[in-house]
Amino acid sequence: MTQPGRFFEDFTVGQMIRHATPRTVTTGDQALYMALYGSRFALQSSDLFARAIGYPRAPLDDLLVFNVVFGKTVPDVSLNAVANLGYAGTRFLKAVFPGDTITAESKVIGLKETTSGQTGIVYVRSRGFNQDGETVLEFIRWVMVKKRDDTSPAPKPVVPELPPEVTPGLLGRAVLPLYMHGWEGALSGSRRRWRSYKVGERMDHVDGATVEESEHMMATRLYQNPARVHFNQHAETHGRFGRRIVYGGHVISLARALSFNGLANAFHISAINAGRHIAPLFAGGTVYAWSEVVGTAELPNRADIGALRLVTTATVDRTCEDFPSREGGEFVKGVILELDYWVLLPR
Amino acid sequence: MTQPGRFFEDFTVGQMIRHATPRTVTTGDQALYMALYGSRFALQSSDLFARAIGYPRAPLDDLLVFNVVFGKTVPDVSLNAVANLGYAGTRFLKAVFPGDTITAESKVIGLKETTSGQTGIVYVRSRGFNQDGETVLEFIRWVMVKKRDDTSPAPKPVVPELPPEVTPGLLGRAVLPLYMHGWEGALSGSRRRWRSYKVGERMDHVDGATVEESEHMMATRLYQNPARVHFNQHAETHGRFGRRIVYGGHVISLARALSFNGLANAFHISAINAGRHIAPLFAGGTVYAWSEVVGTAELPNRADIGALRLVTTATVDRTCEDFPSREGGEFVKGVILELDYWVLLPR
Amino acid sequence: MTQPGRFFEDFTVGQMIRHATPRTVTTGDQALYMALYGSRFALQSSDLFARAIGYPRAPLDDLLVFNVVFGKTVPDVSLNAVANLGYAGTRFLKAVFPGDTITAESKVIGLKETTSGQTGIVYVRSRGFNQDGETVLEFIRWVMVKKRDDTSPAPKPVVPELPPEVTPGLLGRAVLPLYMHGWEGALSGSRRRWRSYKVGERMDHVDGATVEESEHMMATRLYQNPARVHFNQHAETHGRFGRRIVYGGHVISLARALSFNGLANAFHISAINAGRHIAPLFAGGTVYAWSEVVGTAELPNRADIGALRLVTTATVDRTCEDFPSREGGEFVKGVILELDYWVLLPR
Repeated sequence: MTQPGRFFEDFTVGQMIRHATPRTVTTGDQALYMALYGSRFALQSSDLFARAIGYPRAPLDDLLVFNVVFGKTVPDVSLNAVANLGYAGTRFLKAVFPGDTITAESKVIGLKETTSGQTGIVYVRSRGFNQDGETVLEFIRWVMVKKRDDTSPAPKPVVPELPPEVTPGLLGRAVLPLYMHGWEGALSGSRRRWRSYKVGERMDHVDGATVEESEHMMATRLYQNPARVHFNQHAETHGRFGRRIVYGGHVISLARALSFNGLANAFHISAINAGRHIAPLFAGGTVYAWSEVVGTAELPNRADIGALRLVTTATVDRTCEDFPSREGGEFVKGVILELDYWVLLPR
Repeated sequence: MTQPGRFFEDFTVGQMIRHATPRTVTTGDQALYMALYGSRFALQSSDLFARAIGYPRAPLDDLLVFNVVFGKTVPDVSLNAVANLGYAGTRFLKAVFPGDTITAESKVIGLKETTSGQTGIVYVRSRGFNQDGETVLEFIRWVMVKKRDDTSPAPKPVVPELPPEVTPGLLGRAVLPLYMHGWEGALSGSRRRWRSYKVGERMDHVDGATVEESEHMMATRLYQNPARVHFNQHAETHGRFGRRIVYGGHVISLARALSFNGLANAFHISAINAGRHIAPLFAGGTVYAWSEVVGTAELPNRADIGALRLVTTATVDRTCEDFPSREGGEFVKGVILELDYWVLLPR
Repeated sequence: MTQPGRFFEDFTVGQMIRHATPRTVTTGDQALYMALYGSRFALQSSDLFARAIGYPRAPLDDLLVFNVVFGKTVPDVSLNAVANLGYAGTRFLKAVFPGDTITAESKVIGLKETTSGQTGIVYVRSRGFNQDGETVLEFIRWVMVKKRDDTSPAPKPVVPELPPEVTPGLLGRAVLPLYMHGWEGALSGSRRRWRSYKVGERMDHVDGATVEESEHMMATRLYQNPARVHFNQHAETHGRFGRRIVYGGHVISLARALSFNGLANAFHISAINAGRHIAPLFAGGTVYAWSEVVGTAELPNRADIGALRLVTTATVDRTCEDFPSREGGEFVKGVILELDYWVLLPR
């Protein structure tokens, strides 16, 4: 009578899944998010800064919202996942403020049994909503899920078209028109605005953050994400790595917080084009990050803000002054994350 | 001039003790509670869900309230305790909301010197109050406390009658009449309601939670519980176990959070009949839990909710698919907690 | 293009530095502060207690405010510091409440190249402000900072006059007139008031607190203090100590929380005359503390409150029942902090 999670056979294309445990997010969550990552972006830190540029108050960190919505999908989508294969088309559509209540649902948009016959790939489009029913976030992800029974017949394969990127015309929906005279570089930590970044610029974010077991577990529980590999040393001792695995969203949040050093005015993540977890992270590892500007874009009808497309690479126990990435098509040792996303900056 | 805590001689039957450090509980405390235990019960997580069923907003987790009240009693009752012997008659009488201020007091209801002449058993009834003076929680506990001086004369023994259980007629006081049309199973995580549980049903809660030193210490400090064995490795190195001991209330909160898997609609702990800490827990251990339904009860004049009496057993480093408990009158190895309590579910 | 921090050559006497990342402090921050230190002072714990004595609500812990303001100065003042040499003249000037927004600025008040020619001493007066521009806190500190280039010419030495103490006439500005009939000793944890403490009294605060890596890192990130030595085990493995160093403000907050046992009514730190970190603290160490009353003072026109000047000494892995301090002019082994400060108590 306890929840075994869904197996591959339990999904059908077109199926809508409403996820459990709605969540009112609060200043308590934001304080914990700061304590876990040390984020220093001014907009999310200060009601006063937020009001000066036209927000009603400081919104929650974008990735706190992402992680909360993602966490809700886990019991229904990926409790029996063998692997998280990818994300696409993540769009932040509405700012979330303390006091808002987040719910989530997912639609199955594709299914394909793997050649082994023991697993299948499930594609879902997940959405997070606020208390007014407005979509605050959406993303596509695909996971490899176990079959309950290897002899179950394969469903008709449906593989959705995955957007390789979120096009600039779709960016910026979560950002109200801003008053740029209210943006003080001394307070935000940098005077560099959108125009000063050029395609090809690389930034070493310099600092390293060592991760402890209690930190990644507290984070993942804060997101109410019950995926077992993060919490149970007794079981993982006999698992693939012998250790608890740090939740991938924790790595992304760490990399984002580190990126303040170089990107202090990148006040909002507007979209994530793609994310790859190259290797697992374990407690005791020290995370570093660097970023490259791979695109810039004006936003339609927005003279206040512009978009930068970034690829942020995170490593473990390896500094990033030499911008480690691929060599001969393979990621070099130490690289754990490659994240391709759009951030917004004041113009 | 520092506080040595009370010794057995310092207690007299009938004595009232007002405990120090009133505490305004906030959404910050609730966020920490989630980060520490990963609780997923919808009522405590979402203002929207709470309002849909008739609460003014999400109440704090019942065990957060219990742990806060318990913590206040420690400096006055159990700082010189040799052992926490038991609890009885714990009743949750009023929901506690963010912004409420909790105070606590205890009445000494029994005293009995032990045969050794070096210690005595102190029985207290403790109560927690909100800012309006309403009792939010009460419980009886008894502890073995050191004497200051072995030659002190023994007081006249007074042993109070201890309720073996909280009778169903006393349950549900903390719960306003609810609007059951507002209860959405998709959001609460289960469609199982009160009627679907039968006496004798056993549920393995499946998941395991590994405990870290920093987590149990942060929890215990959040509850302002200063009992020394939880915090001081330097002293405990020479102590009975060579290690810091995890606060028993932390174990209970872990077991409750794990029980979501199987009991998602058990939205409120109404009473704790009895609790036993069979063995101490130390950091590094992984806690599992299973529950058995040992009783069901209708509540007087309540068509909206019903009660289940549960015995939840928690283990360390031992899974619960075989429902470990007693063998030949002794608890099997690995069992650390047996909790007998009443939860409420929608009908 | 990332922030290298200021070198000695980047400072000029009279320079004003506005620090980045304004911070709205919340009940979430206060909850984390409790979870990290277990503070039990009634005023900061309870809105009800606060109102009973004349505050609008519970203010934030003084040292939470200190640490937040200090953290803001780090990226601009001490990112390239070789050593934090001292503090002086720390004054708490205005209570800070949840919802207030803190900003900070520093004025360079002194510069002196060291004889090595490789470093220089920078003296700054730092101030924290609330959203109304009122100064909530000020302090002087001086740090030894690396030169970018050893061959840079030395600036004209300017060494400011450092106040050896904050004089009593300057104390108490942050405290509104209080209603002393509202002060309940049973709730505050002690009936000892200002008059009962005499110069020369020594108090062992008894309890010990073992520090974990995740705790000091969460604290330091909560303060948005990015000083690298606290977070990066990968780099510190090859550093001076081979380990991450616990932020000094974490030690001060621990000592203050421990001092509740003996000083429960010392509800407010009004000023810090001087602070010395005698030795670094590392995770795994257990912190103890003791205090001596070294002065008492009436405050001008205040019949409600009085001041005690304390020297609190913190140790690691060494109990304080023998009041460890100096021997033959040297601090005895195990002493890590000596803090000379003024606290206020009800009269």
